Amino acid sequence: MIPAFLIEDDIKKWLKEDLPYWDITTSLVPIKSAKATIYSKQEGTVAGLFIIQKIFEIVGAKFEPLVEEGTEVETRVAIATISGKFQSLLQAERVSLNILGRLSGIATKTAKMVKLARQSNPSLRICGTRKVVPGLSKYDKYAITIGGGDTHRFNLSDMILLKENHLAAFDSIAEAISLAKEKTSFSKKIELEVQNEKEAIEAAKSGADIIMLDNFSPEEVKHAIPKIREFNPDVLVELSGNITLENLQQYTLKGVNLISSGSLTHSVENFDFTMLIE
Amino acid sequence: MIPAFLIEDDIKKWLKEDLPYWDITTSLVPIKSAKATIYSKQEGTVAGLFIIQKIFEIVGAKFEPLVEEGTEVETRVAIATISGKFQSLLQAERVSLNILGRLSGIATKTAKMVKLARQSNPSLRICGTRKVVPGLSKYDKYAITIGGGDTHRFNLSDMILLKENHLAAFDSIAEAISLAKEKTSFSKKIELEVQNEKEAIEAAKSGADIIMLDNFSPEEVKHAIPKIREFNPDVLVELSGNITLENLQQYTLKGVNLISSGSLTHSVENFDFTMLIE
Amino acid sequence: MIPAFLIEDDIKKWLKEDLPYWDITTSLVPIKSAKATIYSKQEGTVAGLFIIQKIFEIVGAKFEPLVEEGTEVETRVAIATISGKFQSLLQAERVSLNILGRLSGIATKTAKMVKLARQSNPSLRICGTRKVVPGLSKYDKYAITIGGGDTHRFNLSDMILLKENHLAAFDSIAEAISLAKEKTSFSKKIELEVQNEKEAIEAAKSGADIIMLDNFSPEEVKHAIPKIREFNPDVLVELSGNITLENLQQYTLKGVNLISSGSLTHSVENFDFTMLIE
Amino acid sequence: MIPAFLIEDDIKKWLKEDLPYWDITTSLVPIKSAKATIYSKQEGTVAGLFIIQKIFEIVGAKFEPLVEEGTEVETRVAIATISGKFQSLLQAERVSLNILGRLSGIATKTAKMVKLARQSNPSLRICGTRKVVPGLSKYDKYAITIGGGDTHRFNLSDMILLKENHLAAFDSIAEAISLAKEKTSFSKKIELEVQNEKEAIEAAKSGADIIMLDNFSPEEVKHAIPKIREFNPDVLVELSGNITLENLQQYTLKGVNLISSGSLTHSVENFDFTMLIE
Amino acid sequence: MIPAFLIEDDIKKWLKEDLPYWDITTSLVPIKSAKATIYSKQEGTVAGLFIIQKIFEIVGAKFEPLVEEGTEVETRVAIATISGKFQSLLQAERVSLNILGRLSGIATKTAKMVKLARQSNPSLRICGTRKVVPGLSKYDKYAITIGGGDTHRFNLSDMILLKENHLAAFDSIAEAISLAKEKTSFSKKIELEVQNEKEAIEAAKSGADIIMLDNFSPEEVKHAIPKIREFNPDVLVELSGNITLENLQQYTLKGVNLISSGSLTHSVENFDFTMLIE
Amino acid sequence: MIPAFLIEDDIKKWLKEDLPYWDITTSLVPIKSAKATIYSKQEGTVAGLFIIQKIFEIVGAKFEPLVEEGTEVETRVAIATISGKFQSLLQAERVSLNILGRLSGIATKTAKMVKLARQSNPSLRICGTRKVVPGLSKYDKYAITIGGGDTHRFNLSDMILLKENHLAAFDSIAEAISLAKEKTSFSKKIELEVQNEKEAIEAAKSGADIIMLDNFSPEEVKHAIPKIREFNPDVLVELSGNITLENLQQYTLKGVNLISSGSLTHSVENFDFTMLIE
Repeated sequence: MIPAFLIEDDIKKWLKEDLPYWDITTSLVPIKSAKATIYSKQEGTVAGLFIIQKIFEIVGAKFEPLVEEGTEVETRVAIATISGKFQSLLQAERVSLNILGRLSGIATKTAKMVKLARQSNPSLRICGTRKVVPGLSKYDKYAITIGGGDTHRFNLSDMILLKENHLAAFDSIAEAISLAKEKTSFSKKIELEVQNEKEAIEAAKSGADIIMLDNFSPEEVKHAIPKIREFNPDVLVELSGNITLENLQQYTLKGVNLISSGSLTHSVENFDFTMLIE
Repeated sequence: MIPAFLIEDDIKKWLKEDLPYWDITTSLVPIKSAKATIYSKQEGTVAGLFIIQKIFEIVGAKFEPLVEEGTEVETRVAIATISGKFQSLLQAERVSLNILGRLSGIATKTAKMVKLARQSNPSLRICGTRKVVPGLSKYDKYAITIGGGDTHRFNLSDMILLKENHLAAFDSIAEAISLAKEKTSFSKKIELEVQNEKEAIEAAKSGADIIMLDNFSPEEVKHAIPKIREFNPDVLVELSGNITLENLQQYTLKGVNLISSGSLTHSVENFDFTMLIE
Repeated sequence: MIPAFLIEDDIKKWLKEDLPYWDITTSLVPIKSAKATIYSKQEGTVAGLFIIQKIFEIVGAKFEPLVEEGTEVETRVAIATISGKFQSLLQAERVSLNILGRLSGIATKTAKMVKLARQSNPSLRICGTRKVVPGLSKYDKYAITIGGGDTHRFNLSDMILLKENHLAAFDSIAEAISLAKEKTSFSKKIELEVQNEKEAIEAAKSGADIIMLDNFSPEEVKHAIPKIREFNPDVLVELSGNITLENLQQYTLKGVNLISSGSLTHSVENFDFTMLIE
Repeated sequence: MIPAFLIEDDIKKWLKEDLPYWDITTSLVPIKSAKATIYSKQEGTVAGLFIIQKIFEIVGAKFEPLVEEGTEVETRVAIATISGKFQSLLQAERVSLNILGRLSGIATKTAKMVKLARQSNPSLRICGTRKVVPGLSKYDKYAITIGGGDTHRFNLSDMILLKENHLAAFDSIAEAISLAKEKTSFSKKIELEVQNEKEAIEAAKSGADIIMLDNFSPEEVKHAIPKIREFNPDVLVELSGNITLENLQQYTLKGVNLISSGSLTHSVENFDFTMLIE
Repeated sequence: MIPAFLIEDDIKKWLKEDLPYWDITTSLVPIKSAKATIYSKQEGTVAGLFIIQKIFEIVGAKFEPLVEEGTEVETRVAIATISGKFQSLLQAERVSLNILGRLSGIATKTAKMVKLARQSNPSLRICGTRKVVPGLSKYDKYAITIGGGDTHRFNLSDMILLKENHLAAFDSIAEAISLAKEKTSFSKKIELEVQNEKEAIEAAKSGADIIMLDNFSPEEVKHAIPKIREFNPDVLVELSGNITLENLQQYTLKGVNLISSGSLTHSVENFDFTMLIE
Repeated sequence: MIPAFLIEDDIKKWLKEDLPYWDITTSLVPIKSAKATIYSKQEGTVAGLFIIQKIFEIVGAKFEPLVEEGTEVETRVAIATISGKFQSLLQAERVSLNILGRLSGIATKTAKMVKLARQSNPSLRICGTRKVVPGLSKYDKYAITIGGGDTHRFNLSDMILLKENHLAAFDSIAEAISLAKEKTSFSKKIELEVQNEKEAIEAAKSGADIIMLDNFSPEEVKHAIPKIREFNPDVLVELSGNITLENLQQYTLKGVNLISSGSLTHSVENFDFTMLIE
């Protein structure tokens, strides 16, 4: 989905970071050809293949993916083969595995949460947040998609999300939403974060597109949802607040549309890959 | 240590990523002043304060750190106060907490490993690797330092590190090291990764500055070190290969100088901070 | 709304374009102080004051706006005063008036269309398109807002807009919208461009958020709208296709929510300002 | 003339502006091949074909121009064909037509003015000004050339142009020109803007290369030119000040060498093209 | 002359080059204040003070120039004082002296050539060429100016310079110049490089603004100039071709207007400065 | 050694500097093909061929090197042939020869110093310094390598180098080195600059990796070296301080390991090449 023609500058920046002058180790080795294979060293969902394809192409190597983007692989599966100059392969290896490991780590955790969530609530969406690594927002969001998750808003220009701090500037939730509708482009959705059921009901009445129940306990969620839907059957309900893979199942309740989890991108467990040279 | 005058471009890139047009939510709120405080929501080591100071200054706010960089804080400690336009505070919040959370996460894990390692081997150093997030190498390495760790080489131009793949191009370890000494600047150290004790001894004989025992079991380490030191008492010995906080204590053996762990930067657990507006 | 702290790089790029080496004319004049005033030379809506404020600040001058952003001014109104080095004022003059003239030109035309449209349909929104000048999208969209218009989607990542070409890849409009809902983030709205009333009705049935009637005649619009609303009373209806200030009044029909016009940004008539030095 | 190898960075910036994450609409459509044709929807002069060729090549498509740069086309003429991935074509379409439409708009208006001017004064040149769109100076100037116009100076480092404000710093026009000749590279021409005939004569005596009669009425021009030429038969005479296509014919007087018009680039009427997919 | 507000990006690039991570040496020293003075260690012309002022300001130090830009100084003259953090001073020292040393080296050699040339030909100009260091064109050209020289054309967009290779594409010199006049903006001068007197005369007849006698011997120059002036008394005559400080006096002949020397910028002898910390 | 895939951005920056708009001279010539050959016009060591290969490839020409990088050539040797558009060849010529001339100039001087030094001390290394041209550090250092020299530290993040100013902050040399060892990564070497023999001995005792004798006379060097080696037989000894090709032989004394010379890069004599078009 990310247009590959637009990631070259990022890749060059990453490569330059690791090669500010030149690779003083491979410079010792005579120029020669080599072949390499990238293997998974764990189970999970692969994300970022098209990026490392571009990395290896930029260093002049030939890259053949052996699995499709988004494939759920077992341990020790060959993911891709690469051929080119020995030097180029080693110079691209670390950067490639760093980005592939991060994105596959995000996709893998997302896929696990999606799977778990849909066991009890088949239409529930697992969503990311803006808690991404600075500089990698596009890539982190993309990896969530590959894991079957929902990107949530990309950035502050992308959707209205009125939180407690914003609401304090208005007389009422109704006033805030009314102003948002008037002042914001028709192309934008309006979400409201609420702290309690009373606010949730007010939001539902006022015509928000999405209501985020912030740090509601499962009991509170169960109680609030029918009330919300009474006033607005179409409104989407999002749960948020330290929901992780570990405690997810308490929140996959009926009527919940969306669960967002910052941990998908702020606390990534790297997916372990290795590149073996023949 | 990172010169603050050189991070402005990175910060602007991060802010633009989250603000490609403008913040459509805070645009609804009349311009007003606000004060905010950043609190820790967990225990750990704070890293990155000077960065978020710069972020808030760039958006026109005033930033007062309340703890020093590298402080080990408890939960619910006020880390810094900020005053400025309400809009500016909210526009800088997410990016600030994202970088502060990552770097403090790295520093916190590093500090834990350092503390644990030094219980049994007081001179042991915990080292990072090149398994950083693309684009953040400088920051990830810095956070390791703040946690009391050793950056290891910054990049491929920084130190000779001959691995299995490189050695395959030479007749012997001795030949490889000899060439490295001849062809490389005097200013660079030479490290060699070895797969077994025999290689380790050969490396020690040949005058490597550092020998990395790759994936050696604790038993193998114990056996190899006296042999290595027999030939070169000053050589540094590094252990590497999936050593994490969990299994660290098996490797903090006598005679080991360095333990490197990719998990310090490739699998960061975000340090949880919150920014409260008064 | 555009964060002023994020436009410095654009401004420097613009200034460098006009000053690749140095200003060989003002280099002849001894360094001296000067004051200048910017005047309108026509009627219209002023947009871009905060940008030229930043430009003059970057060249080291002091800038005092005399009117607020978005003010509708008469001819010969003093817009701002500037004081600084004579050289700096002249070096910033052309770039400043170029951007101010363009953005005020966009705001002025938008404001005229909005005014005209609301005479017959008070809730109608005049919207921009993606027909902006490459490199100035953020600024062109902003100027539309200042003129009272609606930005429409910022870019291709911002909202689903299914056009004829996309629809050709699906069996039906219903299928396309259903897929869009499934595959796209909940945070995104879905708009559909239709070529005739039949498609419009199908779109309304399928749950699009917005239906764009492409090149419909006023008669066709009048006929289609009640049909559309029958199936979906809340759907927004947008008209598009060479609607300009000249022919706008034919389209400001009851039930129309949105009219988009590429001419707002693709064919801008520059707003004439002059900078006089005392 | 613009070296195509130097525009890639501009193009990528433009594409990224419209594709900050990815195209959420075409991402719904299965990857497939497509062919497209770009047609003129009006008469005029085509400018910018080599740029959109580069754009389509960057997105991986194949581009075949069907007319030459600078061709004067009728309505509904096929300008170019493109083949490639359906997704790539749609992702490049808007940016391509935006730049092609602007540059062809500039070339078309320039060509009209040139044609009209040369009816009465065959050696007259129609010139641009520095009133370009910030960021597109190189392209706007180029389009003027394609329309048969003269770029005038590219920027402030390009030619001396002494205006009223500069002259105020000198005792006399003669002193200003004398200093300019002494202090400026031999490679630069010296132009002087004058407000009345007296100044024009002084400029002619002092050895300016070009004299710009600023806001002279046609009568004043007619009166001044013989006087100027009396003192310097070779000096070029430029007219400037709100001369547009509409009032041009009043100024195409004998002896006038140059007429500059800011409207060529500050108030561009977009040239209407459409891209049809087969 | 170079606008100081436009050099910040260059400076940051230079500083980053020398500080990719952080200064590992000064990081050992506790933060403290310091004062420093920059002294000349040779005689010559100082150029680049405003640049190093900006460098020291960027690192947060205070800079006081003690001499004016362009001053001819003796050995051991205090050029500027700086106060700030010890760390900042040392981090900016090398980059500052590198650029100051280069530019002052250029200015010093230029000033020597100018002085020598004017002994025999008071109106002769010593000119640079395009033989600058890639990336520093603006600065190298500026330093020539400070040394009293003439920048010659800045770049390939700046003036027509028809050389032997270009002329080969035309039937005659007359045809080439005639086309240049027709096709090029009035704002550009036209220079022609000739290989012999016959060509020089042809060029003079055809109306070139400047004629460059390429690799003419002093005798050939003396012979050619009266012939050239016969046909065009106003044409400028430039000499070029390995003219350096050493052989300059052979060429400072009557009637020569310009002598260009690549050695001014392609073979710079660094001006030796030192920064002493109190 | 420098990865060719990472220099494209630098090259484009250099080309844009010389081609901000377009080449107004070659634009006069009809598009045609041409072949060119680059010849040496002096003796010396060629460095930078891979860079100009990339330059010519970027402008669309075909480049064939005729000698290998690092070859010592005579005068009038054909270095490379190029074929492509006449226009492209001329547009790339100056930038190519500028960088090739500088790097070959550096390599040539380095090679001369290396040759001379090794006559009396075969294991002596000639080293560069950080006195490079801002923006070209990577290239200048590379050219030193091609000339057979040693790059010395690349930048301030690369090696500890404690100078007089740093030492003033410590109680003793021993304390400084001890702190450096404790606080700095194991991967970094530690060098100390000393002003007299007493300091040199203290440094040797304290375990510095390299001792730089700053501005020692040859007699002082001879006296100090045995004392230094007494305490640390393995320490490297570097001489520094205005050692150039002219006075080198006085310093190539027994026991000296390294001689660094700023003149290698701060005062480069351009290597003269010419490009002839057939």
